[in-house]
Formats: sequence, C-alpha cells, structure tokens
Amino acid sequence: MTSVPFNRPVVRLRPKAEARAIRHGFPWVYSDELVLDRRTGALEPGTLATLEDAERRAMGLVTVNPASRIVARMLDRDAGAALDSAWFTKRLTQALALRERLYPDPYYRLVHAEADGFPGIVIDRFGDTAVIQPNAAWAEQHLDTLVAALCAVTGVTNVVKNGTGRARGLEGLPEETVILRGDVTGPVPVPMNGAVYMADLLGGQKTGLFYDQRDNHAFAARLAKGGRVLDVFSHVGGFALAALAAGAQSALAVDGSEPALVLAEAGAKAMGASDRFQTRQSDAFEALEAMGAEGQTFDLVVCDPPAFAPHRKALDAGLRAYERIARLAAPLVAPGGSLVLCSCSHAADLTQFRAACTRGIGKGRRQGQLIHTGFAGPDHPMLPQLAESGYLKALAYRLDA
Amino acid sequence: MTSVPFNRPVVRLRPKAEARAIRHGFPWVYSDELVLDRRTGALEPGTLATLEDAERRAMGLVTVNPASRIVARMLDRDAGAALDSAWFTKRLTQALALRERLYPDPYYRLVHAEADGFPGIVIDRFGDTAVIQPNAAWAEQHLDTLVAALCAVTGVTNVVKNGTGRARGLEGLPEETVILRGDVTGPVPVPMNGAVYMADLLGGQKTGLFYDQRDNHAFAARLAKGGRVLDVFSHVGGFALAALAAGAQSALAVDGSEPALVLAEAGAKAMGASDRFQTRQSDAFEALEAMGAEGQTFDLVVCDPPAFAPHRKALDAGLRAYERIARLAAPLVAPGGSLVLCSCSHAADLTQFRAACTRGIGKGRRQGQLIHTGFAGPDHPMLPQLAESGYLKALAYRLDA
Repeated sequence: MTSVPFNRPVVRLRPKAEARAIRHGFPWVYSDELVLDRRTGALEPGTLATLEDAERRAMGLVTVNPASRIVARMLDRDAGAALDSAWFTKRLTQALALRERLYPDPYYRLVHAEADGFPGIVIDRFGDTAVIQPNAAWAEQHLDTLVAALCAVTGVTNVVKNGTGRARGLEGLPEETVILRGDVTGPVPVPMNGAVYMADLLGGQKTGLFYDQRDNHAFAARLAKGGRVLDVFSHVGGFALAALAAGAQSALAVDGSEPALVLAEAGAKAMGASDRFQTRQSDAFEALEAMGAEGQTFDLVVCDPPAFAPHRKALDAGLRAYERIARLAAPLVAPGGSLVLCSCSHAADLTQFRAACTRGIGKGRRQGQLIHTGFAGPDHPMLPQLAESGYLKALAYRLDA
Repeated sequence: MTSVPFNRPVVRLRPKAEARAIRHGFPWVYSDELVLDRRTGALEPGTLATLEDAERRAMGLVTVNPASRIVARMLDRDAGAALDSAWFTKRLTQALALRERLYPDPYYRLVHAEADGFPGIVIDRFGDTAVIQPNAAWAEQHLDTLVAALCAVTGVTNVVKNGTGRARGLEGLPEETVILRGDVTGPVPVPMNGAVYMADLLGGQKTGLFYDQRDNHAFAARLAKGGRVLDVFSHVGGFALAALAAGAQSALAVDGSEPALVLAEAGAKAMGASDRFQTRQSDAFEALEAMGAEGQTFDLVVCDPPAFAPHRKALDAGLRAYERIARLAAPLVAPGGSLVLCSCSHAADLTQFRAACTRGIGKGRRQGQLIHTGFAGPDHPMLPQLAESGYLKALAYRLDA
C-alpha cells in the first residue's frame, strides 16, 4: 500500500458500524455508520477522504457526500491511491477489455458505475462517440482527467456529457448536456442484433438509447419470426426493430413520445424495413385498451414500461400497474403467441414482478408458460454485493392456444 | 365442457383446502388437501380421477398417487377429457410449435412435464430419435398412445424409453431402459452452439445429454474466444466443446466419469478440435486443489456440478459445497478472466446460491463483477405458479485483474 496523503480529510466508521461488509467488497457507507461530526458534515460533496475503521486503520479512499444517505463511496481499497491519469487509464482499460471480448462492434455500455470501479459514473459508447453521465460530484471534479484517459484508451473522438440524471441534484450538480470533445450532429446509427437504431445523443432520455435490453431484444426476436409484433412503450423501437431484423412480418411501435417514434421510423428506414413498420403515438394504457376493444391480436406483444416502482414507497402502486399492463396485454396475444413483460423498477424484485405479471395474465383470462427470465446484459455488470438490487427484469410467457 | 365419465373415481378437496391456487393454475394437490378415505387411499398409482372441490363441483381430470405427497396432478381442466390419441396429439403439437420457433434444428427438450401439460413426462428429441422419461404411473399406462402420437406429430422414427428417473420408484415403476420404436445404435451426434456433442441415449445419466444449459454454454463461449478454458464436472463436454466452437485456444474437461469423457473426446474429434482438447478423469475437488497447488490458471473456468442441495435437508451442506467449489476455482482464473458457477439444486434459490459463490470467491482471495445470471433454456418452460422452484442457475463472474 502506498502512503496515505497527509492532507486528505479522514472520515471514520462508528465503533459499532459493520465494517465487515465493507471489507468484503460492499462499496457504500451509510450515514448511520459514519461519525458525522461537524468537520465531516462540512465536507463538500465529492471530497476525497481516507476511510478509517473505528480502530483508526485506513480502509481505503472514498468520496464523501454528507447530504446523501450513502455518505461515502469506496473509490479504491488502497487509501494512498491518487486519482491521476494512470488510475483512470487502468480502470477504463479493464472495462474496455470485457466489452471487447463480448461485442464485435464498439457499441455498448463501457462503464457501469460501481461494478466497473467508477461510483456514480456511466459511460455509453456509440462507435467513436462516448456519452458520460457523471452523476456524482467527484466525477465532475475529475472530468478532465477522465475524458483524456477515455479518449486515449478507447480512441473515441467525440465526448458528450449528459448531465440529466436525477442523482445529480442530490450531489449539488447542475442539469446540463454539453459536447466536451469533437462534434456530434444529428442522430447516430447504432447496430444491434441485426437492427439499426437511431440514437439522438443530445436529446436526453426520451431519444437516447439503452443498451441494457440487448439480450432480451435478441430473445424476443427469436419468438417474432414471421409474426405480427406489438411493441408497447417502444421508445426508439428496441424490441420492434430487433423483431423486424429477425424476420417479423410486421411491427407496431406504441409510445407517448413523438421524438422517440420519429427515431424509430428512421431506424426502420435505415434497415430497409419501413414497409413492415408502423408507429402509434399514444398513452400506452389507452392504446392497449383500445386495441383490446377492437379485438386486435399479435403473435408477440412486448411491454417495456418506465419504472412504475422506482422506490419502496411506490411498490404497491407499481405492482398494480404491472398487473394492469399484463391484464390488458394478454388478450392481445394470438393463440399460442408470446408476451414479454419488462420491469426496470429497483423496488420490485423478480418474485414480486413475476407474481404481478402472472396475476394479470390470469385476470386477462389466459394461461401461460414462463419460457425466459432475463436481466440487463453483461455490459451492465453488478457488484455481487449489490446484485439483489438488479433493476431490469424481462419475462417471456408463451400463452395458451 | 364435455360430460364427466360416470365410471371414473372421484377424489375431493377437503372443506378447508385452498382451491383458489388450483383454480388459478397451480397443478398439484397435496395429500393434506384431499379427503383421503379408504376408497381414495386404495387407488392404484396413475389412476385417472375427477377432482371435485368441497362443494362437489368438478375441477378437472387428475392422476392420483395416494402414496405421494403430491397426491393428485392436474391433467386437464376439462373433467370430461379422455386421454385418447387426439388429446396427446394436441398437446404435442403445441409443444412442438414452440420448439420449432426457437431452434433451427430438431434437437431440444420437446416436453418438459407440467409446463407442457404432461405431468411427470419428459421427452428429449435428438433429430429422428426421441427419448421419453415416463416418470409417472399414468404415463406408463398410456405409453402406447403417447408414442404413436409422438411419432405422428414429430416424424421421429426411433423412440427410447429411459426409465431411470428417481421419481419412478415413488410411482411403483421398474427401472429399465428399452427401445420402443426403430433402432438406436451407438452415440448420436448432436449439433448445439456450433459444437458437436455425442449422446449415448441408452447409457443413462452419465452419458446422455442435457439441453438445459444450452444458453449458458452460449454465453460462456462468448467469454472463451482465444482463451484457455477449464470445464470442471464436464460430463460429455457441455461448456468445453461450446468454447472450442467459439474459438477457444484450448479446453480441459474434468469429470469423474470415464464414459462421459470418452464421449466428450468423440465430440471434439467430430468437430475437428481434438488438438485443442484434453480430458482428465478425476474427482473434481481433488483436481481443483491439485491445479491450485500447481499454480495453473485459465482464462475461463466453469464448474457445473451435480445437485449438491437436491432437497431442503441437504441445503446447508450443499451451500457449503458450492462455496468450496468457488473458493477452489477462483484462484485458477487468470487476471481479468471469467468464472462460471452453476447449480441444479432445487433447494438452493438464486439468492442463496449467489451468496455462497460470492463468499467462496472472496475466500479464494478474488473480487468479481457479476456479468450474467442464466437459467434453463426456453425448451424447459415453467408454469409461472411453480417458477420459484426453477432448479438451474448459472452465474458468470469476471474476476479482478
């Protein structure tokens, strides 16, 4: 271990704090575990500090935010580490090696926060363009070093800072999206599962692109060949375009966002699949109810809604919403067809989400086999110690004939 | 609903039995839920009966085994159904439609018991050969009708009855493996994930083939390209041969069964990959310890052991065994390499298994990212009401550099 910088503040675990979990890889210190004296309470969000246990032994380098429930996040088990260019280069190189092993093309989540050793930082790569979400104050403070290392390690020439994450408010960071390097003009075509997606990297959540569903798109596409597909909450066409690439007869994308549907149409056009693709701008619940009343059916129905249960307090209402989605979607599935239901809610675990979906399918007067359970793809790694909180779940049911 | 056959025995739920779960798709009646009078207790295993609720309303056609904790299994929600050729044909046709949608070649689990509407029956298809496991008395009694329908629906010409399942003893069925139709001589080559596996369909569990890991083989193979692979508890080479097909530099298969390793070598030969493939007949724990002592490392290590926790009483010992596997395997993983750990234990759920693996990796002095969680493939569907008991789990960790 290198020597601990003498000028770094020290924060200390309470005598009864459970240091064991942290020693075994848990990356967070909760506010009730830390001695929150006036000195620690006055630290600016993002301050680098040495974490000590109650016996004053250094445990590592942390970033502190006294205003957050997660008051300290582990940056390095070596308390003497310095956040210099070599530090960022090493971690980015490790993150890149995993993605290059997994994907033939440079389109993936390159850095997935804690699990890649970058608490609060997300970096998505779109060919020669990277989008950084620095959702933590420490990241904002070291952004120049990070960006320089990122360009050197990956060879990307364009870098966008997407500062629209909800977490930034907690960290006292402004909401802003800016181009840090190079240039980005217009939507970027992204190849995935044989489809082409158009990602507007400056437009924010409603028009960007999520890589986390890639493997679930691929699974659903296997069910879509030759069939009619309905993709509800389609965003820029995640499931619909993958289904068309796999040979679906037709796909209808439903979303409330017109900009997202315009990008979906541009993707279908880039694939030469416009003649098999339709969109419908609508509230998803209203669209499901209307199509049910009309007696429409599809061979594959996918519902990938926003998080209905993002936190504990929203759990009951969220599960009712998932059940309602399943109840409205099940009757739209043709005999022997498939229904894919997704949740990106942290608060609803797999068992609860599956139970809500199964109840909804039953209330929709259908029975189903569960043929697939999927999570976020491998470019979204998890720390095993935080795996219980895996947010994304996708369930594929095959319904009765 | 057709009329209920007057000559069929009637079994009845107790007044306080929870008929709701059964009405909502749960397929089993436990012995404490049924009126077990002398008449019901005297029914032969496999007897077809009409299940009634406490108010004497028919709920469906069940098969009864008074000696089993699961005393009745739902065969048809229509109590008047007859188990004739049309009945088997309809269900087999539905099962086949799902597999033909999912797989380009006729190699898959065709019937996965309850979830495909055939309680206690498993049918695996290997091209023009089918292997039936009739692990329930009702199946044995209707085997001729089932086999005739199977040949007609799928076009298979060879049918093997594999009567080695543990459940058969409970049902009072003898242990026997016989060829019911056509002929089977020598191992059958099975294409999967670009590899070729040799399956000895008459030799039983130690030499047959399991389809359930197919998607996990495919995921692990993505991590194997160009690397050195160790496949512990390899059986006929499931992970090792998929890795070779994906371009692994070399693969070493370790198993205690010599017949299984001979088949693995035959598979590698059929793939033209013998020069990259080695086997080692050994107890797996001993092999792991020996290779650790020698300081050997691999870019991908896979451990797919038999069920260490097949039932509740074995849970604690089973979890300790999984932890030990992880502890012994982790040091064999090269820096930045991957570790895939599997469990086919019913009793150990995902959370428990993951915790045991993560503990073991830590005790092996490594840290890891969890990059993938997989289950049995979609030709092993589950009834959603039984999904909690999904037996197969595969965890892929990427270890520290």
